[in-house]
Amino acid sequence: MIIDCHGHYTTAPSQHTDWRKSQLDAFLAGAPTPPYPAISDDEIRESIEQHQLRLLRERGADVTIFSPRASAMAHHEGDERVSGEWARACNDLIARVARLFPDSFVGVCQLPQSPGVPVKSSVAELERCVLDLGFVGCNLNPDPSGGNWTAPPLTDQYWYPVFEKMVELDVPAMVHVSASCNPNFHATGAHYINADTTAFMQFIQGDLFADFPDLRLVIPHGGGAVPYHWGRYRGLADMLKKPPLTEHVMRNVFFDTCVYHQPGIDLLFEVVDVDNILFGSEMVGAVRGIDPQTGHYFDDTKRYIEALGLPEADKEKVYAGNARRVYPRLDSALRLRGR
Amino acid sequence: MIIDCHGHYTTAPSQHTDWRKSQLDAFLAGAPTPPYPAISDDEIRESIEQHQLRLLRERGADVTIFSPRASAMAHHEGDERVSGEWARACNDLIARVARLFPDSFVGVCQLPQSPGVPVKSSVAELERCVLDLGFVGCNLNPDPSGGNWTAPPLTDQYWYPVFEKMVELDVPAMVHVSASCNPNFHATGAHYINADTTAFMQFIQGDLFADFPDLRLVIPHGGGAVPYHWGRYRGLADMLKKPPLTEHVMRNVFFDTCVYHQPGIDLLFEVVDVDNILFGSEMVGAVRGIDPQTGHYFDDTKRYIEALGLPEADKEKVYAGNARRVYPRLDSALRLRGR
Repeated sequence: MIIDCHGHYTTAPSQHTDWRKSQLDAFLAGAPTPPYPAISDDEIRESIEQHQLRLLRERGADVTIFSPRASAMAHHEGDERVSGEWARACNDLIARVARLFPDSFVGVCQLPQSPGVPVKSSVAELERCVLDLGFVGCNLNPDPSGGNWTAPPLTDQYWYPVFEKMVELDVPAMVHVSASCNPNFHATGAHYINADTTAFMQFIQGDLFADFPDLRLVIPHGGGAVPYHWGRYRGLADMLKKPPLTEHVMRNVFFDTCVYHQPGIDLLFEVVDVDNILFGSEMVGAVRGIDPQTGHYFDDTKRYIEALGLPEADKEKVYAGNARRVYPRLDSALRLRGR
Repeated sequence: MIIDCHGHYTTAPSQHTDWRKSQLDAFLAGAPTPPYPAISDDEIRESIEQHQLRLLRERGADVTIFSPRASAMAHHEGDERVSGEWARACNDLIARVARLFPDSFVGVCQLPQSPGVPVKSSVAELERCVLDLGFVGCNLNPDPSGGNWTAPPLTDQYWYPVFEKMVELDVPAMVHVSASCNPNFHATGAHYINADTTAFMQFIQGDLFADFPDLRLVIPHGGGAVPYHWGRYRGLADMLKKPPLTEHVMRNVFFDTCVYHQPGIDLLFEVVDVDNILFGSEMVGAVRGIDPQTGHYFDDTKRYIEALGLPEADKEKVYAGNARRVYPRLDSALRLRGR
């Protein structure tokens, strides 16, 4: 069993993305949101079978933890109502994918975040997605302002209602920003990686996991810059008089394997405990090309992991065991299907 | 000959830092800046001999490219006049260190940047420091707002007067942010590393080095997240229809070795050409403790480089040759002293 913990619906039918555009246009014009368009099951099937499912099969994985397109969450656009409508539309579409392909996709939701407003509606949407739609986690955007970083750090009480609901529902969050409206930050080349690094350092500075010992957070893209600077982070924890990272942060924080070359994956596995690493590819996502140095897709991260020569027990953890532990509702769903 | 390309005067006499505080207090009170205090040569000698020079000798390096404390540049405080006074005071102090220890320290200047104003005064201060004080480069802050990222990207025309002057004077810049006034970003744990990553991605997106083929920029802290995500950056350059990184960016961009553990240094040298790597430690700087895993200082980066087992010719490049090439005025100064 191979579970990819990080996949986005980047190939959603055009009616869906066109509607988003018309929704934002209506918002700016002060007009009511147009009705959501009809999208047939066949259109959804086609959008998945030709892309994610084909690649999943070609690369030899089984299940993708699947969420709405991260860059399109764009919590900085519109307002809380607009973000609410958009999150529900995106999550309902993910639920349809998961119902059409129950063996291959399990849902993770986008939250209706909006800059400067409390997270109350995010708590409600998380509950709806987990209890009504069968989702197993959420994506939490630490910067709903889209590159202006106006929200408080993740260790601030502002976020606590979401964390309380996550613990109550026993679901994790992937810490994942969206598009950047700050011209300094290329979305997938700077903003994503910076957010990963930033979140990790916030966890070092704070004591979030003293308040939420059961909270689980996945930092994507291999943990941003963190494994490369593992010595810096161990040293900073020490300077800040915090316990070692293994106790202070790594009981609650996990990294995926969205690192698109062999030396990066080698480093990740050298410095981070195998219990903290979840297989992920973010396919079809940020980097879609073929690496001329290898002749394979940059984001075919399974190849890099295979090349590590891990003991079977460790490989099983990275491919499935850790994901089933971090996402217990995924584990339950798989068991119900005898997997 | 071993040249450390990245050292800050983090141990300046307290009169200097006290004056800064009084300068900012006066600014806020609308009062004139108090006169700069007397600091004796002996006080400067002591502040250097007990710290940077002692460690330089203990660790076996010869020359440090030395600049004002990066976190204290704080371009977001005060205004352009205040930043100008502070930059001159800091740079003059560095010049005194370099005059007192001409065999061990060579100056690099802080620029009087300020959010939202043109870089004209930075151009003038750069010229003063290079031509009058014998400095060999500058530190350029891509985010003078201190974590709010309100300046245009480094590829924007806004920065061109600085780049033109750098090319004219044949000096490089280290791209180095300062303190963060955004609570999301820990200075040395997030803001510094994010800025390194951000700058590199800006260079991929833009065509800065087509306009300035002779411009040289050092990205510190081992290039932020870049080497760890080297596959991502190669893939993004490809998706953006840019030439390979080796041609598009790496003729003009260099990384230091401020990566505080062996696996990080191993990765850096695995993916980045040895011609692009300059020895640096940022000592005494961000991470001052001893690594319990090794029993040595985290920032004793020479140990990690020694452990690589590089061919002598490559080691010479990293320790000295590359720095002499990137900082030609350093090379000239060393030659004048028969080194």
